[in-house]
Amino acid sequence: MSVVVQNIRRVERSVCEGFAKFGVATVHEAQGRTGLFAPYMRPIYPGAHIAGTAVTVSLPPADNWMIHVAVEQCRPGDILVVAPTSYSDAGYFGELLATSLVSRGVLGLIIDAGVRDVRALSEMKFPVWSKVVSAQGTVKETLGSVNVPVVCAGVIIHPGDLLVADDDGVVVVARKEAERTLMASQAREEKENITRARLGSGELGLDYYKMRDKLREKGLKYIDQPPDGD
Amino acid sequence: MSVVVQNIRRVERSVCEGFAKFGVATVHEAQGRTGLFAPYMRPIYPGAHIAGTAVTVSLPPADNWMIHVAVEQCRPGDILVVAPTSYSDAGYFGELLATSLVSRGVLGLIIDAGVRDVRALSEMKFPVWSKVVSAQGTVKETLGSVNVPVVCAGVIIHPGDLLVADDDGVVVVARKEAERTLMASQAREEKENITRARLGSGELGLDYYKMRDKLREKGLKYIDQPPDGD
Amino acid sequence: MSVVVQNIRRVERSVCEGFAKFGVATVHEAQGRTGLFAPYMRPIYPGAHIAGTAVTVSLPPADNWMIHVAVEQCRPGDILVVAPTSYSDAGYFGELLATSLVSRGVLGLIIDAGVRDVRALSEMKFPVWSKVVSAQGTVKETLGSVNVPVVCAGVIIHPGDLLVADDDGVVVVARKEAERTLMASQAREEKENITRARLGSGELGLDYYKMRDKLREKGLKYIDQPPDGD
Amino acid sequence: MSVVVQNIRRVERSVCEGFAKFGVATVHEAQGRTGLFAPYMRPIYPGAHIAGTAVTVSLPPADNWMIHVAVEQCRPGDILVVAPTSYSDAGYFGELLATSLVSRGVLGLIIDAGVRDVRALSEMKFPVWSKVVSAQGTVKETLGSVNVPVVCAGVIIHPGDLLVADDDGVVVVARKEAERTLMASQAREEKENITRARLGSGELGLDYYKMRDKLREKGLKYIDQPPDGD
Amino acid sequence: MSVVVQNIRRVERSVCEGFAKFGVATVHEAQGRTGLFAPYMRPIYPGAHIAGTAVTVSLPPADNWMIHVAVEQCRPGDILVVAPTSYSDAGYFGELLATSLVSRGVLGLIIDAGVRDVRALSEMKFPVWSKVVSAQGTVKETLGSVNVPVVCAGVIIHPGDLLVADDDGVVVVARKEAERTLMASQAREEKENITRARLGSGELGLDYYKMRDKLREKGLKYIDQPPDGD
Amino acid sequence: MSVVVQNIRRVERSVCEGFAKFGVATVHEAQGRTGLFAPYMRPIYPGAHIAGTAVTVSLPPADNWMIHVAVEQCRPGDILVVAPTSYSDAGYFGELLATSLVSRGVLGLIIDAGVRDVRALSEMKFPVWSKVVSAQGTVKETLGSVNVPVVCAGVIIHPGDLLVADDDGVVVVARKEAERTLMASQAREEKENITRARLGSGELGLDYYKMRDKLREKGLKYIDQPPDGD
Repeated sequence: MSVVVQNIRRVERSVCEGFAKFGVATVHEAQGRTGLFAPYMRPIYPGAHIAGTAVTVSLPPADNWMIHVAVEQCRPGDILVVAPTSYSDAGYFGELLATSLVSRGVLGLIIDAGVRDVRALSEMKFPVWSKVVSAQGTVKETLGSVNVPVVCAGVIIHPGDLLVADDDGVVVVARKEAERTLMASQAREEKENITRARLGSGELGLDYYKMRDKLREKGLKYIDQPPDGD
Repeated sequence: MSVVVQNIRRVERSVCEGFAKFGVATVHEAQGRTGLFAPYMRPIYPGAHIAGTAVTVSLPPADNWMIHVAVEQCRPGDILVVAPTSYSDAGYFGELLATSLVSRGVLGLIIDAGVRDVRALSEMKFPVWSKVVSAQGTVKETLGSVNVPVVCAGVIIHPGDLLVADDDGVVVVARKEAERTLMASQAREEKENITRARLGSGELGLDYYKMRDKLREKGLKYIDQPPDGD
Repeated sequence: MSVVVQNIRRVERSVCEGFAKFGVATVHEAQGRTGLFAPYMRPIYPGAHIAGTAVTVSLPPADNWMIHVAVEQCRPGDILVVAPTSYSDAGYFGELLATSLVSRGVLGLIIDAGVRDVRALSEMKFPVWSKVVSAQGTVKETLGSVNVPVVCAGVIIHPGDLLVADDDGVVVVARKEAERTLMASQAREEKENITRARLGSGELGLDYYKMRDKLREKGLKYIDQPPDGD
Repeated sequence: MSVVVQNIRRVERSVCEGFAKFGVATVHEAQGRTGLFAPYMRPIYPGAHIAGTAVTVSLPPADNWMIHVAVEQCRPGDILVVAPTSYSDAGYFGELLATSLVSRGVLGLIIDAGVRDVRALSEMKFPVWSKVVSAQGTVKETLGSVNVPVVCAGVIIHPGDLLVADDDGVVVVARKEAERTLMASQAREEKENITRARLGSGELGLDYYKMRDKLREKGLKYIDQPPDGD
Repeated sequence: MSVVVQNIRRVERSVCEGFAKFGVATVHEAQGRTGLFAPYMRPIYPGAHIAGTAVTVSLPPADNWMIHVAVEQCRPGDILVVAPTSYSDAGYFGELLATSLVSRGVLGLIIDAGVRDVRALSEMKFPVWSKVVSAQGTVKETLGSVNVPVVCAGVIIHPGDLLVADDDGVVVVARKEAERTLMASQAREEKENITRARLGSGELGLDYYKMRDKLREKGLKYIDQPPDGD
Repeated sequence: MSVVVQNIRRVERSVCEGFAKFGVATVHEAQGRTGLFAPYMRPIYPGAHIAGTAVTVSLPPADNWMIHVAVEQCRPGDILVVAPTSYSDAGYFGELLATSLVSRGVLGLIIDAGVRDVRALSEMKFPVWSKVVSAQGTVKETLGSVNVPVVCAGVIIHPGDLLVADDDGVVVVARKEAERTLMASQAREEKENITRARLGSGELGLDYYKMRDKLREKGLKYIDQPPDGD
């Protein structure tokens, strides 16, 4: 059955904004190394960094009709997540759809398929993380669903979940875990700031993390390189 | 048999120049969603956009001899198209060949294999769309052909066909279709300008494209998200 | 057995510095078209160009413990080379490890796996050539070895070998071949400067390289395109 | 957190057995074209066909410790489903683990990674669907979880769900949908039996499915091949 | 425009039958190493070997409607060739369509996408060469064309061309080249029979093919392995 | 420089024969989980299992000349290992070369590229492990080397090393490690026989391997599935 689920519950705006300063790696670690999209999801231009709430689209290969349906469900601070039901590298999305999304305050697009008009999108500063860049046209013949749970690039996304995307890729945080993960991200960042300072001053990680004993117990040996008769 | 076909018929220069302002996606759509190269063909630097006539090269894997032969057949406004007869990711092409092509007025290279010296090529502003960047050297041992029909990245290119390449990839337009496709591209662009303005002002695609009735007929349902007992 | 080999013999600093002006393609050709890493190894940002000595790490999939061990073995002018024992696209390396390496004068990282914090690494100007960008976290549970011979992206690297990396990829030069290859690179560069000038002035490669006779002997035919009845 | 969820609810045995005669394609269609694993999941030998209940394992790359934990949770009629948290092609599973599973009445293994000892497994008639065959050894260092929801080869599996696997691949049916899907599969099979008889007698699908009018409306044209001047 | 081209000219039946004893490698060599499909095209079961005339289908990703249209255009001795307009690994074809094709005397299917019901197809002895096995269902919404030239797995096929397929893959022979290629295949086979006998009796290829002088001229050196101090 | 190294030292015949009963997984584990070829190396037919000494060939992409040279260097009990200097999926090897190798007592071929005539090779019972099956023809234009160290499918092979290949893939054992690895394989096999009997009788690996305490220490929790309100 094809449905559009309206009025979804979303992570609160203030929580999303709290995530805006944390990178994907930090958030992924802070929630126990989960939620990371497969690494083939790449940004169309470097330097973008967004955090927002998921509006999800499940649709057929090479058919972008449901993206048009999804636009109406978007609110400021949302990120559109598009997952075809089987493999497609067609170009589902381009400048016109981006124009619509920008007018609704959408922060970006995450699509397990292709995107086109990437020059125009880069100039508009509308960020997209996609499997591929492709101009291949799509049709508008077959229904799908909006705001149902989807698997995108190997992870489950529920509508209203939090997404963070930057040059490292994309990570999802479940809606009910968002506040806890925000605090954990903050804690991790603070700890890393200290570590960075120590390592930057020349202290070895071996000492800072107190690894030497454990390495020895596991059996690591240090030897000198034998001569080679030069 | 290995042949070099000379004095090929080409799309007229004025027609090529007309295409210079249309992106790959526009041209691909304007000719009925055909002619698009596989999306693994990527530019070596962002922002290049060319339209010109194909000089084609069919050659062996990891042997670039025929590119040297092809240079002589190039004229200003041409684009070189190189297709190995079996898979190769060797680096067939670098700065020296680019220097030759620039001196003959060639606009760029499209190669279903590897390219090298990409820093130098970027600085020369000589654009290349390739399957891969690779410094792997090639030999000069085995013949191929110049200006025969080739399959490159999944599409057929005849010598003299029109090619358009930008950040979205590469599209070919058959020589005899070039004028008709130019007009269709122009028409499409004009229509998109209007659409963009309407969508940018906040009008929904669902309304602008009058999709609501057809969606309902196909059976799309709108429901509210059920409560989850938070 | 897991070992850390200390006090390895390295290509001399002055020789490494001599390579700093030669690109990967030049060095690869100068040593007889060997030593090139597979072309999936890509830089995280364009424009980096380094030449230095290899400190090698062999480690398990998705476990970066041995990188921490390797840091201590690095000296100014080194390049860290990381090769998992089976396929991994996890993110073994990020900003903190880079901070350590920078403080030891390491020039960059070459890793047949994933890297993260690429925005921060780009801003630090710490170059990385990797198979993939991935934020996927790793563990610190299983030993590996430092400064043993490794196969990375299809080539053998011995500790102390010379590595050159630029936008074309990465090439290794065996330690004992470094001086000879430096001279051969210099000779090749000089020859190419002359060739570039000649080709840039419009001379055809067919003539400059004296290819026409050999092509004729092999059987290459020149024909005119037959009319197509337009 | 690493957990083992015990005493999971499973699709009833009689329902599973009802599925044993339906192929993956039939079940996938009967539940609305959902639930199909990515097609890279291939059987290690042809002709196996199983239907059973999922015991799920989420574990680290190249670490098979949790499979040993999962064995204890298996009952007759179960199928083990193994999903690493990041890409791995290591050989997590071989003859010894299969011996354990057989002794507990497990029907087969579905693993989004590598399997080894495939000759022995084939001789034991213990079927496996995997991403790859690989002898690469794994470690036992890091925890994971058993009987939590996992994403395997692009689909979500909850513990206790129904799995059907044959030469076409693998499909999952959600536990609460199993009975309904069983009836739908039965209905589809009956309908196909009639269709098969009609098509086998020479009746065209165009007529049997009454497609001709719709094709004409969409604009399909029939033309004769023009002469080519032979 | 979507068209069905009827009454295509085909390679004569007697010529096709002449090819039935030649393998793909022989035919590919006999016509000058052209016409070979990309090696990802694999048979669904070993041992099939067919030679017949192409009925071609160009269709959208994940939409198999045009295959139903193409069935009507098939005659005994034909082979159906199916090429999506963009990448798809959906399962376009299964037992029911095979039943139709068998009733029309079609020899097999070659599809640059997925096939399903492979167990049933194997039992029917209906051979298929495909990119992938996949049960993923398709829709019937969008037109394509029958008996137009297509690019399938990297080669151009015109309707009526000859196709040979065996365990090595698939090769196409242009209609007008079929007789000449048949004779060349025969000649090659005879020559190979002699060579096989000579090599089987222990004569070295180096001598039989008289390679030693040419190898020496190119600079090949024979040395003994230096001692390694065991 | 292109060389043929003659009279290489090989693992002794009796040692090779000792390996003939051990599978690839056993040998790989017995030597500390090293030496395994990448898993894309697959046998052309199931059930082959060989152990022999490596004659290595380094050659250009799509050029099989050096295989003809290598035949002369082979002795009974050898296995030919072929590694192109850059990626190739061409069909370097077929029935005629196999006829030569069989007449010299060679046990099989391992090639990081394509093989053809696979039906004939299967009927001859000449086993091949390759990256791909491909009929694509090769040339004989460019030299390479025989019996030099090569990297094949990610591992280093020296001439005379021991190779074991079965349905799981291929593993290399360094010449000087062969005897020690043979004993370790024997020991491992004996231990596994005991384990197999115990696990087959229903004993859990958790108990047999005494894993429960370590799992608890690492923090594994056992919980019951919460009710879901059915």
